[in-house]
Amino acid sequence: MLLGVAGVEVKHDFCYLSNPHATDLFLKYFQKDFRNTENLRKLVELYPSQNRSLALKAGKAIGLPAKNIFVGNGATEIIQAVLQNFARKKILVPVPTFSPYLEFTQKEVSVVRHQLLKEKDFRLNTQAFLTQVKKEKPDAVVLISPNNPEGGHLSFAVLKKLLDSLKSVRTVIIDESFIHFTARKIESTSRLVLKYRNLVVLKSLSKDFGVAGLRLGYAAMSEKRVDELLARGYLWNVSGFGEYFLDLINKKEFLKEYEKARLLCIKERDEFFTVLSRIKGLKVYPSKANAFLLELTDGSKATGLVVRLLVKYGIYVRLCKDKVGLRGEFVRIASRSRRENNIMLKALVAISRGV
Amino acid sequence: MLLGVAGVEVKHDFCYLSNPHATDLFLKYFQKDFRNTENLRKLVELYPSQNRSLALKAGKAIGLPAKNIFVGNGATEIIQAVLQNFARKKILVPVPTFSPYLEFTQKEVSVVRHQLLKEKDFRLNTQAFLTQVKKEKPDAVVLISPNNPEGGHLSFAVLKKLLDSLKSVRTVIIDESFIHFTARKIESTSRLVLKYRNLVVLKSLSKDFGVAGLRLGYAAMSEKRVDELLARGYLWNVSGFGEYFLDLINKKEFLKEYEKARLLCIKERDEFFTVLSRIKGLKVYPSKANAFLLELTDGSKATGLVVRLLVKYGIYVRLCKDKVGLRGEFVRIASRSRRENNIMLKALVAISRGV
Repeated sequence: MLLGVAGVEVKHDFCYLSNPHATDLFLKYFQKDFRNTENLRKLVELYPSQNRSLALKAGKAIGLPAKNIFVGNGATEIIQAVLQNFARKKILVPVPTFSPYLEFTQKEVSVVRHQLLKEKDFRLNTQAFLTQVKKEKPDAVVLISPNNPEGGHLSFAVLKKLLDSLKSVRTVIIDESFIHFTARKIESTSRLVLKYRNLVVLKSLSKDFGVAGLRLGYAAMSEKRVDELLARGYLWNVSGFGEYFLDLINKKEFLKEYEKARLLCIKERDEFFTVLSRIKGLKVYPSKANAFLLELTDGSKATGLVVRLLVKYGIYVRLCKDKVGLRGEFVRIASRSRRENNIMLKALVAISRGV
Repeated sequence: MLLGVAGVEVKHDFCYLSNPHATDLFLKYFQKDFRNTENLRKLVELYPSQNRSLALKAGKAIGLPAKNIFVGNGATEIIQAVLQNFARKKILVPVPTFSPYLEFTQKEVSVVRHQLLKEKDFRLNTQAFLTQVKKEKPDAVVLISPNNPEGGHLSFAVLKKLLDSLKSVRTVIIDESFIHFTARKIESTSRLVLKYRNLVVLKSLSKDFGVAGLRLGYAAMSEKRVDELLARGYLWNVSGFGEYFLDLINKKEFLKEYEKARLLCIKERDEFFTVLSRIKGLKVYPSKANAFLLELTDGSKATGLVVRLLVKYGIYVRLCKDKVGLRGEFVRIASRSRRENNIMLKALVAISRGV
């Protein structure tokens, strides 16, 4: 709503989570590939490929058979499809988290929250989670790693152990939309869908590749579930521009350059954390995503910080007042390029000094 | 499947239904507006607007309040959303028609067909339709005008009269995806959603505007139904490129040029019909869409025609063997530019003469 205030201009959008270096890379390829109008015409005029063909492209990129892949018009569409088709009666969702997991179920499904504890840096306590599963007997559970808003990460080993304990749950959803930001080595659980038939692993391609405007994501799951989704829809759910991107992520040259952009983003995030943590009056929660949850520990109000950042510095951050399961004075800020992160740091330091 | 045959190259795609002049126009604007890389970056990097904001843009373009508009990622997504949310038990669908209407319902919904008669040029007999409604008591019915594959059109007056007789049906879906091809004056029923609470009017923007690659469509319906759909999904379901297009169709200058492209397409379609109708051994069904259903009346096989057109002329047309409710030797061909239509005419004439 602040965006509508007269005279306020957003110069730096730290609300929005995306790797800016990857966007640069995409634009470089796009402009080269579409200098020729005929190529652009095909993209605009023709129907893109249908879901099965897109799955072939996405599957090739991540090393999974196409029959186990559902391609979506952004992770949001996939969350909607997965929740509405595979969560039947009760779903257990750790909070705080990305709100569509609490909102997009069918009307009759009961949504039970598993509260992540602030005192434990919002890290999932697997034992407590399994105890609640035993008590509530949900037919679906959600595990988001790294989590949004705070970036808490569950390792591959922990997730695999959890899967072994969750065999009686009909649907286990792992959302690894932020996994490219975790570390040099990416330990995706997507291949585990070949072993665990109840597993659905979904991933946005917006954040890591910096292309939210294209609307693209995918989910890995059992062949039967892919068939079930495609039997009743999702025929042409990705645009020609989205399909072009799926072709790009199968190109060695692009991937080589992307890997540099990815590692740079991780490096800048870690540097950002180090300096952020030194600012007085702020608690910075450790994060393996490209964002940080900041808690104001000096008695000041999050709303005040959001307004000051915006009005005085043109910096837009995410107020977390509406986050279910999050009480206190919190804001979430993205990690962007080093240059922009430094602008944010200067502003926060100035505010913390009462300047 | 023929597309995979070695040595076969599609030079003219008459399978695909789209106004090529409108595509030219879109490309002209796109290239002008995105010469500046910063503009393109915004489109790619940022999340597009959410559905409510897109509805404001679409609503402005068609003269309806945003609260009555649901914007979709192509008409296919809208058909899926409308069928799965508003058809509860039984749906009545005139056939032959666009197949998603027969396939995208919830599993438990019974799909009853209303057979359109070949002898009557597949025109809907409203009395017969209403009789079947009375007998079957569906909670949802579909009316597609102009219809696909044959382009049969129901006038505004006929549709309005039907709506008066269908007040007891919970959901009446009118699909007017091809309405821009009907005539100089476009008589949309979308405004009637303000009067008939059971009405849902949906429209693709792919065909008339020649931008299938963008994936865009909208549906007009009661405010309550829009709320119902948006409460559980469809948050960011249109790409940045789709949103750019919604901005375009609110620009007077663009609309003025589009109107020329639209009328040219209608003119070429009518000229095409006149000459097509003279070819021996073919029955051409009258059409108000930008496509014609051709029936082979000389005892030859549709499959043979499809193969000959493709192998000898590089022309790709739609074989209609899989169309539910259509028996006989049929192919559907698009009407494209005059130049391409003439290539098709020459090929058909040569084939009809056994050359």
